[in-house]
Amino acid sequence: MSILNKRGFASDNNSGVHPEIMKAIIEANEGHTIAYGDDIYTERAKAKLYEHFGNDIDIYFVFIGTAANVLGLNVATRSWNSVICAETSHINEDECGAPEKFNGFKLLSVETSDGKLTIDLIQKHIRGFDFEHHSQPKIISITQATELETVYTTDEIKELADFAHQNKMFLHMDGARIANAAVSLNKGFKEFTKDMGVDILSFGGTKNGMMYGEAILFLNKELGQDFKYVRKQGMQLASKMRFISVQFERYLSNNLWYKNAKHANDMAQLLASKIKDIPQIQITQKVEANGIFAIVPKEIIPELKQEYFFYDWDESRSEVRWMTSFDTQEEDINNFVELIKKKLS
Amino acid sequence: MSILNKRGFASDNNSGVHPEIMKAIIEANEGHTIAYGDDIYTERAKAKLYEHFGNDIDIYFVFIGTAANVLGLNVATRSWNSVICAETSHINEDECGAPEKFNGFKLLSVETSDGKLTIDLIQKHIRGFDFEHHSQPKIISITQATELETVYTTDEIKELADFAHQNKMFLHMDGARIANAAVSLNKGFKEFTKDMGVDILSFGGTKNGMMYGEAILFLNKELGQDFKYVRKQGMQLASKMRFISVQFERYLSNNLWYKNAKHANDMAQLLASKIKDIPQIQITQKVEANGIFAIVPKEIIPELKQEYFFYDWDESRSEVRWMTSFDTQEEDINNFVELIKKKLS
Amino acid sequence: MSILNKRGFASDNNSGVHPEIMKAIIEANEGHTIAYGDDIYTERAKAKLYEHFGNDIDIYFVFIGTAANVLGLNVATRSWNSVICAETSHINEDECGAPEKFNGFKLLSVETSDGKLTIDLIQKHIRGFDFEHHSQPKIISITQATELETVYTTDEIKELADFAHQNKMFLHMDGARIANAAVSLNKGFKEFTKDMGVDILSFGGTKNGMMYGEAILFLNKELGQDFKYVRKQGMQLASKMRFISVQFERYLSNNLWYKNAKHANDMAQLLASKIKDIPQIQITQKVEANGIFAIVPKEIIPELKQEYFFYDWDESRSEVRWMTSFDTQEEDINNFVELIKKKLS
Amino acid sequence: MSILNKRGFASDNNSGVHPEIMKAIIEANEGHTIAYGDDIYTERAKAKLYEHFGNDIDIYFVFIGTAANVLGLNVATRSWNSVICAETSHINEDECGAPEKFNGFKLLSVETSDGKLTIDLIQKHIRGFDFEHHSQPKIISITQATELETVYTTDEIKELADFAHQNKMFLHMDGARIANAAVSLNKGFKEFTKDMGVDILSFGGTKNGMMYGEAILFLNKELGQDFKYVRKQGMQLASKMRFISVQFERYLSNNLWYKNAKHANDMAQLLASKIKDIPQIQITQKVEANGIFAIVPKEIIPELKQEYFFYDWDESRSEVRWMTSFDTQEEDINNFVELIKKKLS
Repeated sequence: MSILNKRGFASDNNSGVHPEIMKAIIEANEGHTIAYGDDIYTERAKAKLYEHFGNDIDIYFVFIGTAANVLGLNVATRSWNSVICAETSHINEDECGAPEKFNGFKLLSVETSDGKLTIDLIQKHIRGFDFEHHSQPKIISITQATELETVYTTDEIKELADFAHQNKMFLHMDGARIANAAVSLNKGFKEFTKDMGVDILSFGGTKNGMMYGEAILFLNKELGQDFKYVRKQGMQLASKMRFISVQFERYLSNNLWYKNAKHANDMAQLLASKIKDIPQIQITQKVEANGIFAIVPKEIIPELKQEYFFYDWDESRSEVRWMTSFDTQEEDINNFVELIKKKLS
Repeated sequence: MSILNKRGFASDNNSGVHPEIMKAIIEANEGHTIAYGDDIYTERAKAKLYEHFGNDIDIYFVFIGTAANVLGLNVATRSWNSVICAETSHINEDECGAPEKFNGFKLLSVETSDGKLTIDLIQKHIRGFDFEHHSQPKIISITQATELETVYTTDEIKELADFAHQNKMFLHMDGARIANAAVSLNKGFKEFTKDMGVDILSFGGTKNGMMYGEAILFLNKELGQDFKYVRKQGMQLASKMRFISVQFERYLSNNLWYKNAKHANDMAQLLASKIKDIPQIQITQKVEANGIFAIVPKEIIPELKQEYFFYDWDESRSEVRWMTSFDTQEEDINNFVELIKKKLS
Repeated sequence: MSILNKRGFASDNNSGVHPEIMKAIIEANEGHTIAYGDDIYTERAKAKLYEHFGNDIDIYFVFIGTAANVLGLNVATRSWNSVICAETSHINEDECGAPEKFNGFKLLSVETSDGKLTIDLIQKHIRGFDFEHHSQPKIISITQATELETVYTTDEIKELADFAHQNKMFLHMDGARIANAAVSLNKGFKEFTKDMGVDILSFGGTKNGMMYGEAILFLNKELGQDFKYVRKQGMQLASKMRFISVQFERYLSNNLWYKNAKHANDMAQLLASKIKDIPQIQITQKVEANGIFAIVPKEIIPELKQEYFFYDWDESRSEVRWMTSFDTQEEDINNFVELIKKKLS
Repeated sequence: MSILNKRGFASDNNSGVHPEIMKAIIEANEGHTIAYGDDIYTERAKAKLYEHFGNDIDIYFVFIGTAANVLGLNVATRSWNSVICAETSHINEDECGAPEKFNGFKLLSVETSDGKLTIDLIQKHIRGFDFEHHSQPKIISITQATELETVYTTDEIKELADFAHQNKMFLHMDGARIANAAVSLNKGFKEFTKDMGVDILSFGGTKNGMMYGEAILFLNKELGQDFKYVRKQGMQLASKMRFISVQFERYLSNNLWYKNAKHANDMAQLLASKIKDIPQIQITQKVEANGIFAIVPKEIIPELKQEYFFYDWDESRSEVRWMTSFDTQEEDINNFVELIKKKLS
């Protein structure tokens, strides 16, 4: 491996493609297949998702998580609605305003300590119903695992879903790291999504070993009714769809999704266990998925980055983010911790 | 090859991925790479495009041709502009209104006999300048090769580009099948694009052996200035960008793009040569790229479709479209023509 | 009257405000009234419209016809729909792309000889249903009286409405000059709108003696369900609403709307009768409302314009448009015709 | 005056039209005038604004303040930009999401204690420049007088303008109550806008005695370059423009704007002076313009509302808003205060 392709802790999307996924892609490359999703690979991928979530859902594949979130939020809203989310959520912070642009609606963000919404926190935005001067709240959007790598419990999800439904709203889940959350909760996907009342789910795999592609699952099936038009107009209908679908099929077979996520989470635990006793370092969030947030002495950060790529989270307090992924190796952790200790000594 | 994956004449995007491209993808799957395009694969892919188009251009990769067109048209327009195109153009007919939705502008379409715009044809839309009740014409958009598989000559392109510039407008080219056009013209890409005055180019490869990914080339470089924001907000910034970039690099190396397109065009010529003397069949457009439009006796169409998948073009006059692609085999043509003759006899 | 304010034939919106309307505005200017429409004047204006259209409709006031059309088309569509209209229609030609911008949908226009749509003419756009690559046709929009001052018969309207409904579409009517059409048809408003199946109506008054303000009538009542949010977000909810409402109340009382439109139409007939025998002038459209289209010798047009302001319609064939309005005087007609004759002699 | 039209303290837009304005409207109602603003009344209104702001600005009239803000923010932004504003600002709180819908951009709001932005408060949003995942900050928007009826000093405005310009951003001012601010500051309009660096100004008059109409002033003139298209597409180009323009002309003549605002402000001071010694009532914001925010014993609020209409501001702490206007009478204040005292005793 060249220095260029050295494994680091920058992001799970810096990792490559799991060999099983690559194999599936290669195998799907045979002859002609009807374009745009009317093919056997897509049928099989959907069948796998039905296995996990039950048959009473509607499924669409798109290219990327940005689109899964933006378009998934489209069908249940009109432009005069609002969507409530955490300030740190991807839809608020990292999409260059794509949700507002495509949907015309208003994002109402909420400060949180751990990336997780609660009824108390969002209460201030639950108002103005029926008052035409005010954007009408319609969706609560949560991320599982959160952008701070914390994980909602099933109870927490159910509470938010019930609250949403009581207010004639929907619950959306950005599941870019849903596999890591499932491993963390030790539950099947359905148990903490559909069973708890989640209506719309962005189901991601790219951060966990896939090449590209994301699924939008309308767990509240009727919301998907016209989605095929939204996907097309949203520039997300792949012509050679089979190469997305076949990834999902393989990803959801033989527990590949589980093994990958379990490994990534384990590596994060390993890293946490090794640094938690270093007095100069303070872990700032619960380590529940595949990332660690930590305050690190400012002076060593550039030196660490020279050997392992990672990102600052909050420069003002010298907080960094270290992500692990399906291909992180124990030796990566060991070498990284050694380096940290060396720089601190 | 199973019946499921039988090669037909439906579309060049029903074909799979060229083995060389697949090999490149596999080779790029090594270790970690910075996400979102700040990587060596992307650098190399751009270098290849600079080789073909000159250095004075701006390059961006997106997932799909729909987006290349929609987003490429964004930067040179405001919502009160209009874009002039052929009625048969992809942006007018096949994108579910994506150009209007994302850009807010007005599409002004023009009927053509062969998919090609001329100054005469578009003249009726060149008016209302400075009159605020009227959308302001800003871009002329052509497709090369056209949706009717005809090809603009360099002179025809230059005329439209000059006309656009005289009116303070830009010329956009949808190059979903630009390789087929290049082969047809027997010219390099630059000769019939940048050199003729094309400002914005959607450079496609998926229909010619790639898996996914499209390039937007701002041949008028300054138009690309802020495009990175448009791409991100347009939900087209791939996280694992290397797998798009590496395809373009390989596609543009060793004349792969040329060989694939040459073969597809040749197969169309072969098919044309074999059916042109069948009296019951009438070819309706010049065969200049990799597709044939033909009026075929209505009664045999369903029977042909049972063995080879293809699409109706204009049902009202029993016109069909037959597309060839990089992987079409001579025997496919021979068998298909035999079948036609058998059904007609 | 100064030369500046001389009555001409440019447009009925060059005219001022009818004295009765002005009186109503003055009378409404008493003390405080709750803003944004929750007031007695708005209630009374609605009551007047219920008298004319029946109670089973939903009513909203906005500032201007552009908005009545654009916003009225919003509620029955999503951005992936299309709206079919005449090429000469205001929404296609004169709104600087506002319908596409605000609604994101596609306008499909049709060439007509007289500004009127027929099933035959629009048939070519009635296709692609359920095919996600294609914008989904959802509304047929007609103008009554048309931009060419022709008038749909009740039968013609019913045919289009039935056709729309058979295709699960809606019929929208731009009624900027609906009063002129009613007079022309010698029918009440309801008879050629709600009774014939019109779903959404832009009900205008500004061209017929009001100062500003337009009503959107959801004759298909349930379409209006969420419209208050659309109006507010569409920047069309007047704070001092009473001054719009009171105009409608007065306009619809004592047959003021009828008298004004009748007079304008009569003046057009008078003008037509006086020029129809001038051999050098050719009237090009049926004179059914308050405007005349005529081909006039090119050389006299600038001279006529020096004394009476009016607009060219189709310069290429020396066609002009002469509009009459509620305040056009017989002497205006007489003097204008004399001037024409003088210039032609 | 009927009970229906009783003067209250709900809002200055519950008031009617000043007699001088009404007179101007009546006088403009003479004969024909070219529609859409190419008229002498509009010319004169602009001349008045040039008197106040200098000649080096660009001026457009629209129907309503919502549109002045939304459209005024359009020209200096693209959809991938963001606009920073106070959480209480009209554009954030009271426009049903119109700014996001029309402009596609992101609103970044900031909590304030008094409705006023400071560099310290907005600093957290001044980041992410050149990073394509993040909406690019482009405009700071302030309201003068604020929605809490406080007034920025000239120094405070200059500081924000300089800060904006240092960051290649613009400063927008929502001047729905700019006259009240001018009176409060005892300065001419130009002194606390153009002279301090404000780039875009929504100049309102409806809350201060006009019937309808708002001006957008591009104090940074070149920003107005293409605005006529934005206004038209934004559904804000009045056909009978003269009736908006003539209001502005009269409003800016003979100090009418000043007298009206001075009176409204004085009435607010009078009310404040009379209640400040009532121990059960606590005024919560500085009284600098024409409104008072006060915490009032919960039990008397419904009783007060039975005789004088006004709105709750923050029900959770029993805070109400009392607005005065150009037509508030001293006796209104006296009677209201008496009523309060009676209810409290």
